Amino acid sequence: MKNRIDDLEINNLKIKQNTDYFCFGIDAVLLSDFAKEIKNNSIVLDIGTGNGILPLLLSAKTKAKKIYGLEIQKELYSLATENITMNNLNELIEIVNGDIKNAKQIFSENMFDTIVTNPPYKKIGSGIVNDNEFVKIAKHEILCTLEDIIKNASFVLKNNGNIFMVHRPDRLVDILCLMRQYHIEPKNIRFVHSKIGSEPVLVLIKGIKNAKPFLKIDKPLYIYENNGEYTDEIYEIYGKEK
Amino acid sequence: MKNRIDDLEINNLKIKQNTDYFCFGIDAVLLSDFAKEIKNNSIVLDIGTGNGILPLLLSAKTKAKKIYGLEIQKELYSLATENITMNNLNELIEIVNGDIKNAKQIFSENMFDTIVTNPPYKKIGSGIVNDNEFVKIAKHEILCTLEDIIKNASFVLKNNGNIFMVHRPDRLVDILCLMRQYHIEPKNIRFVHSKIGSEPVLVLIKGIKNAKPFLKIDKPLYIYENNGEYTDEIYEIYGKEK
Repeated sequence: MKNRIDDLEINNLKIKQNTDYFCFGIDAVLLSDFAKEIKNNSIVLDIGTGNGILPLLLSAKTKAKKIYGLEIQKELYSLATENITMNNLNELIEIVNGDIKNAKQIFSENMFDTIVTNPPYKKIGSGIVNDNEFVKIAKHEILCTLEDIIKNASFVLKNNGNIFMVHRPDRLVDILCLMRQYHIEPKNIRFVHSKIGSEPVLVLIKGIKNAKPFLKIDKPLYIYENNGEYTDEIYEIYGKEK
Repeated sequence: MKNRIDDLEINNLKIKQNTDYFCFGIDAVLLSDFAKEIKNNSIVLDIGTGNGILPLLLSAKTKAKKIYGLEIQKELYSLATENITMNNLNELIEIVNGDIKNAKQIFSENMFDTIVTNPPYKKIGSGIVNDNEFVKIAKHEILCTLEDIIKNASFVLKNNGNIFMVHRPDRLVDILCLMRQYHIEPKNIRFVHSKIGSEPVLVLIKGIKNAKPFLKIDKPLYIYENNGEYTDEIYEIYGKEK
């Protein structure tokens, strides 16, 4: 076990990470920013919360009433719970150990105003598979597929509730078609490019349950300037001075 | 009738346009460039050819064996035919007056290696409707819907044949889901932005019939530099010196 405690540099939040597991990256930070329009007093669910990074960031960036983090892996569930306690956020955030495929039993229909999720990006059998079981599960659709997530998210989401997802651009067709299949209309897409003029490396998607079709593609989000420095927008998202 | 003859500035091609109808724009030029990988000796169909701009540009940019342009409006069919004759391209290009909904009768199953299309962008009842009947039909889904085009395109497309489409980003979900529904897998997407950091104004999509899912999103195509000049890529596409 290689534990380390990182400062999230927002609201004095700290997070314990274990480098044997999957540690959070820029994906989670960008998703929390993309989802920051979450309405006051919302009931929020993070599907596949890992070490609890998204509920922690959302506690600082939104005025949600309650944030649930669902995590299937026992070890990560324990770590996330420890992180919530360490930050004195037990009233706001509840980590639940369970499988999204049992969402109907764990939660109830139309329970959530908002769902956020940073799911495994890769299909089974695609990409390089990490030997580490924890990382493998976080990165590949081993314990759940994209369809499991979208189908069950739609069930527990309120009418007009929204879902915010970060994923890889190569899965965009799967995401959009599955959302529509399960009555979540994709309304906003934002591509994340490492720099101006490069292909996108991530995609942020917002869907609304039972909304009418009309997609808005936002201006691109660039991570680096051409000189290798972070862009102003990334500095702003990370809450740092340039 | 306000006729004018424009020089396409490639292969000495000329085009007669009628400003009472819908005149071609940058969309057609970008689509012809996006589709320039069309293989030698291909049989190509342009759905909704208008004044014949796409077959004309593709005659210069590819080594297709035969290019058909399908046009439902009699007046535009006549104009396109005139344009093909004016350029001495009657052997290579054939303009057909007909409705894509009758594709099965007009053409035959699995007939085409490649389809290109610059369809009406707007659903009926959305956007400002032009009083001019010709422009209205070119811009709105009055005589055919996106589903009519994709469904019939898939029928006349060969197995592994490709389709290149230009459309508005707000219709992306419709396009991707309809393509998949009719066994055309979206393989490449390229967004066109008027300038760096702005939202996309157009989207170019390549699909392949019965291909495996894996989407590649290309680097963005910018039309203008921040100083208002065309980008190098646009100069290149238009075949002009800077």
